[in-house]
Amino acid sequence: MSEREEFLRVARRAGDAASGLAPLPRAAKDAALHAVADALVESAPEIVKANEADVARAREAGTSEYMIDRLGLTVERIAAIAEAARKVAALPDPVGESVRGGVLPNGLELRQVRVPLGVVGIIYEGRPNVTVDAAALCLKSGNAALLRGSSSAHESNTALVGVMQAALAGTDVPADAVQLVPGTSRESVKHLMRARGLVDVLIPRGGASLINSVVEESTVPVIETGVGNCAVYVDASADVAMAVDILLNAKTQRPSVCNAAETFLVHADIADAFVPRALEALREAGVTVHGDERIRSYGGDVVEATEDDWYAEYLSLDISGRVVDSLDDAVAHIRTYGSGHTEAIVTTSQPAAKRFVARVDSAAVMVNASTRFTDGEEFGFGAEIGISTQKLHARGPMGLPELTSTKYVVTGEGHLRG
Amino acid sequence: MSEREEFLRVARRAGDAASGLAPLPRAAKDAALHAVADALVESAPEIVKANEADVARAREAGTSEYMIDRLGLTVERIAAIAEAARKVAALPDPVGESVRGGVLPNGLELRQVRVPLGVVGIIYEGRPNVTVDAAALCLKSGNAALLRGSSSAHESNTALVGVMQAALAGTDVPADAVQLVPGTSRESVKHLMRARGLVDVLIPRGGASLINSVVEESTVPVIETGVGNCAVYVDASADVAMAVDILLNAKTQRPSVCNAAETFLVHADIADAFVPRALEALREAGVTVHGDERIRSYGGDVVEATEDDWYAEYLSLDISGRVVDSLDDAVAHIRTYGSGHTEAIVTTSQPAAKRFVARVDSAAVMVNASTRFTDGEEFGFGAEIGISTQKLHARGPMGLPELTSTKYVVTGEGHLRG
Repeated sequence: MSEREEFLRVARRAGDAASGLAPLPRAAKDAALHAVADALVESAPEIVKANEADVARAREAGTSEYMIDRLGLTVERIAAIAEAARKVAALPDPVGESVRGGVLPNGLELRQVRVPLGVVGIIYEGRPNVTVDAAALCLKSGNAALLRGSSSAHESNTALVGVMQAALAGTDVPADAVQLVPGTSRESVKHLMRARGLVDVLIPRGGASLINSVVEESTVPVIETGVGNCAVYVDASADVAMAVDILLNAKTQRPSVCNAAETFLVHADIADAFVPRALEALREAGVTVHGDERIRSYGGDVVEATEDDWYAEYLSLDISGRVVDSLDDAVAHIRTYGSGHTEAIVTTSQPAAKRFVARVDSAAVMVNASTRFTDGEEFGFGAEIGISTQKLHARGPMGLPELTSTKYVVTGEGHLRG
Repeated sequence: MSEREEFLRVARRAGDAASGLAPLPRAAKDAALHAVADALVESAPEIVKANEADVARAREAGTSEYMIDRLGLTVERIAAIAEAARKVAALPDPVGESVRGGVLPNGLELRQVRVPLGVVGIIYEGRPNVTVDAAALCLKSGNAALLRGSSSAHESNTALVGVMQAALAGTDVPADAVQLVPGTSRESVKHLMRARGLVDVLIPRGGASLINSVVEESTVPVIETGVGNCAVYVDASADVAMAVDILLNAKTQRPSVCNAAETFLVHADIADAFVPRALEALREAGVTVHGDERIRSYGGDVVEATEDDWYAEYLSLDISGRVVDSLDDAVAHIRTYGSGHTEAIVTTSQPAAKRFVARVDSAAVMVNASTRFTDGEEFGFGAEIGISTQKLHARGPMGLPELTSTKYVVTGEGHLRG
């Protein structure tokens, strides 16, 4: 069987599993998630062994210790992954929720209810915990998961999916509801991206280049996630101490994630009060500032910002900074360079907050709060499959309801259209 | 300027117009829609003249009278089109609607509000009324419209858009918010389909081949609309008279539209009672039945159904028919051959209705009602931009809320993430 034929076989089995999974009641799905969690804990030693093979291969290939740490699984980490699956079981089931409903003038009863999407494809890099997290969120929302992890984690992912499938075999959830895309070649990803009709949605999780290539090549509908070039705008009316605290938190609390700040924009009227204090605080935190001429005029070790800096998602202890003459100039900067993830305004002016919120076209807009709050856990969703930066279907942190579609159910008594 | 450069210029201007349009209050958008309606009525003679050129060209090309009738505009038709725009003005504004909201445990105030999508591209065939209908729905929902109509209606569409732009120039809505894609070549559609980042969503309206080619080539997110291979399933427990009425209404009330029935499936236990009456009623209505062996065993002029018939969206006075041994066999038939638009069950059994509703994966499922009810007007949405047959973003009839995205607005008092 060719790799493509093998893929099609797997995808069709996922489709059949999705049909069996869709009508299952919550209790059956929760029981399956607990069975998966139990099995992961029980099989932790064999999963660790498979992971050791991946880690050894990565070491031989000269992978950085940071990446190897991300790749590594221990019995403790596996216990935490299993615990996360139990947490998903505890979340409300979105399937069957009534989104809209009523009786039409002609007496027809109309209800719009949440239903699973069907088969969800997930392409991801790095950490093998995503294999279980994504599968758990898909199962809970009644979807089959077709997983394509990094080839560097292939042994680990194969072991994790094997354990999950064996656990599901003893439950009402079809074991085929969780599957790995066969193969590790670049070509094997393409089968997934071209599987329109077999796969209902594709969620790439990873860096900009992965996401762009999926968007470019996929005929399956894609939800873009994760690229965050987030800005903090310090308005003329800002509380300076609050602005410094928010900027520092947004930049340094966890620099490697998509909701970390990558740019600050300061209104000219408050620059004298804000910029020196901000530069000092950033320097103390080890942050390199890439500034325009007006930022650089305040001294300090500010690197000259290039056009590339305004576009940059550093994911490191770097930040770009610029003085702007108005709130609208800040909005214009964000419109030109931002990625539509999260922007924050620090202000004491209600009209300024209102104008910024109305004009900034990002998934999340923060008023007097750190950009770091854009997160499914922080928003109270319990878990997230990713943070969408597109406008279609889901925008911002995606929880369980974002993994569903809807269906209209219309009930009559022999109603005919006249 | 090349056609592509011209397209990019137009798309960027649409983007700027969208930014200006997004924060406008409802009154400004409604006033603009009334100005458009007034101008259409006033300029009806010049629009008719442009339309006559399209009609003459179509006649020369040997176009069928049916298609020429669809293409034709009269002063009366233009008045009706203007009236439809006024009706859109009267609908509630979805922008700013709060979808979800509350205060998080840490005191952050979280609100998810509806915002416009941005720039909406619409590719459509046939009737020039879509040019105004689509523009009106986009404007009302705060979106700029990039329109690509049929080349056969190019003069008409150019005149309609010219009148709309001139009318908008006297309002708060930027005139660039309604634009035609430059050019009439096949290549010019491609510019639109590849304009990811400039165009937020593409809605193709038309036949299966148009929609498939857009899905295949577009990097802009697409919402599939309109292909409907709808089935009526007559359950063992059905009221036979009701089943015949529903089948007849679903097939013949307007055969050329996507929510017309194209297949009927009959439970074997009721076939003796139902099939002869249904065949007679269908024959009297001029419908050709394409049946399987079991349907054909009841006599009548039933054509032998081929595999193609089960897939067919006839859009004519034809229907395929099959006897099935169970409700689950009917569901399996629908899963194999259906297009996920609308299916109906006729039954007096509550468990059968529940099972059918839960297992049929279509945008709309009717219980004891005609498939013809799947429609934005009938559902009470006031108007529709199309009927989505995909699961992402919108499913079923798309009204104004389906032309929006959302944004999270998070308000704190200097909140930092710990």
